[in-house]
Amino acid sequence: MKNVLLTIEYDGTDFSGWGRQPGRRTVQGTIEDSLRRISGGKARLYAASRTDAGVHAKGQVANFMTATRIPIAKLPRVMSALLPQDVTVTKAVPVSPRFSARGRAKAKLYAYTVAYGGHVPVALRRYVWEVPFALDVPSMRKAARQLVGDRDFSSFANTDKRRKLTDTRRRMFSVKLRAGRLDEFFGLLGKGSKARAVRIEVLGRSFLYKMVRGIVGTLVDVGRGRIAPEKMGTIISSAKRSAAGVTAPGRGLVLLRVYF
Amino acid sequence: MKNVLLTIEYDGTDFSGWGRQPGRRTVQGTIEDSLRRISGGKARLYAASRTDAGVHAKGQVANFMTATRIPIAKLPRVMSALLPQDVTVTKAVPVSPRFSARGRAKAKLYAYTVAYGGHVPVALRRYVWEVPFALDVPSMRKAARQLVGDRDFSSFANTDKRRKLTDTRRRMFSVKLRAGRLDEFFGLLGKGSKARAVRIEVLGRSFLYKMVRGIVGTLVDVGRGRIAPEKMGTIISSAKRSAAGVTAPGRGLVLLRVYF
Repeated sequence: MKNVLLTIEYDGTDFSGWGRQPGRRTVQGTIEDSLRRISGGKARLYAASRTDAGVHAKGQVANFMTATRIPIAKLPRVMSALLPQDVTVTKAVPVSPRFSARGRAKAKLYAYTVAYGGHVPVALRRYVWEVPFALDVPSMRKAARQLVGDRDFSSFANTDKRRKLTDTRRRMFSVKLRAGRLDEFFGLLGKGSKARAVRIEVLGRSFLYKMVRGIVGTLVDVGRGRIAPEKMGTIISSAKRSAAGVTAPGRGLVLLRVYF
Repeated sequence: MKNVLLTIEYDGTDFSGWGRQPGRRTVQGTIEDSLRRISGGKARLYAASRTDAGVHAKGQVANFMTATRIPIAKLPRVMSALLPQDVTVTKAVPVSPRFSARGRAKAKLYAYTVAYGGHVPVALRRYVWEVPFALDVPSMRKAARQLVGDRDFSSFANTDKRRKLTDTRRRMFSVKLRAGRLDEFFGLLGKGSKARAVRIEVLGRSFLYKMVRGIVGTLVDVGRGRIAPEKMGTIISSAKRSAAGVTAPGRGLVLLRVYF
């Protein structure tokens, strides 16, 4: 048996998230089903991040044990040929038998795109959260800076019924904001639109359930003037979800990269 | 009754084309159903272009007669609120009672994107035709020039069973090619890809059935070296579909604009 680490890219729109659920189309389920055709027996994937419904990935990673005779270097092409259009395997490498992508990452990089102030073309609606108000980016940056470091992030996380958390402290390396025109970010697909966009890149060791979306939603509430940027410290120390802002929708979020 | 001209944008991926067909999800059917909720009675749309399955539009136009009391300027927002995520109305203007968008256009502008030489990100698969060979763009440009003018374009058109054509001559104003990296065309959605892209913009008075896709497929056959660019004249004068190249898939095509 070999332990293989896959890099996976997907458009999360038509998936009920990563994690396998009976009767639902999930990324894990879809890939495991295609692996069964290759391996013969059952295959179980262990992913670095269990992304939610609608969330996309450029660099999801997941490992699985296999006895397949297909050379590992050929797995991306073979698997992608068996997979539907909205998910693909971009890389496959052998890893040590004891390695698991789950819980082992040194850091994960997520990006979120919010747009405002103009028509968002239909082709971008799957990847962008469109808000009906202007955003004050300097205020958002000011608020974002207070999120960096070792913090208790319970104020931004939703309760995950499947796993009770005893430790809600997490390490955040950086929260960076870039602002520009929508067509500067997306080229031809944004062409003709007058919308503005804010791209929020979040780099952390690990994240609580829905934490990135809670952070983005809160930063957007800062950007529209509902929450003062100075209040970020109080929100964090309150350790109450109700103190922070809304949860941003999944579609604006993409898992860019996992570092080991 | 007022005659209203709509500008319509859609992602064609999940539609069986523009034209209403029983039991199928079409753009015309979807918009007419939403119009019925506004107008009360039946509404019939007349479009400038009956786009095929998978083909997208940034600037489709269609008119309809209505007795609605909703101010015309408010129609885009009202209609878009009733429409699904993959289609939207961007503009509505009153036109004279005798105007019809069908068959009245002075020109139509289409764009087609082909990619090669690298991984095409999942997010762009809906908008790009990925080919597994390199393209010689100067040869394609040389071939494209021979398409401009008044020509019999039967070599590039598929037979449309619904309407027999007596006149297969059409006027082509220009066929322009732009080449670049995929990420230069699509920004963040192309990021990290080493693929190259060719964007083919076709401006003509009107087009035969599947003619743009026949032209693109033939130019791609030129680009890969299957057809010599000098042969374009012979292909046109033969007036036989079999003389030209393949029909490019719908997904790479977008109707950008209709001129009246």
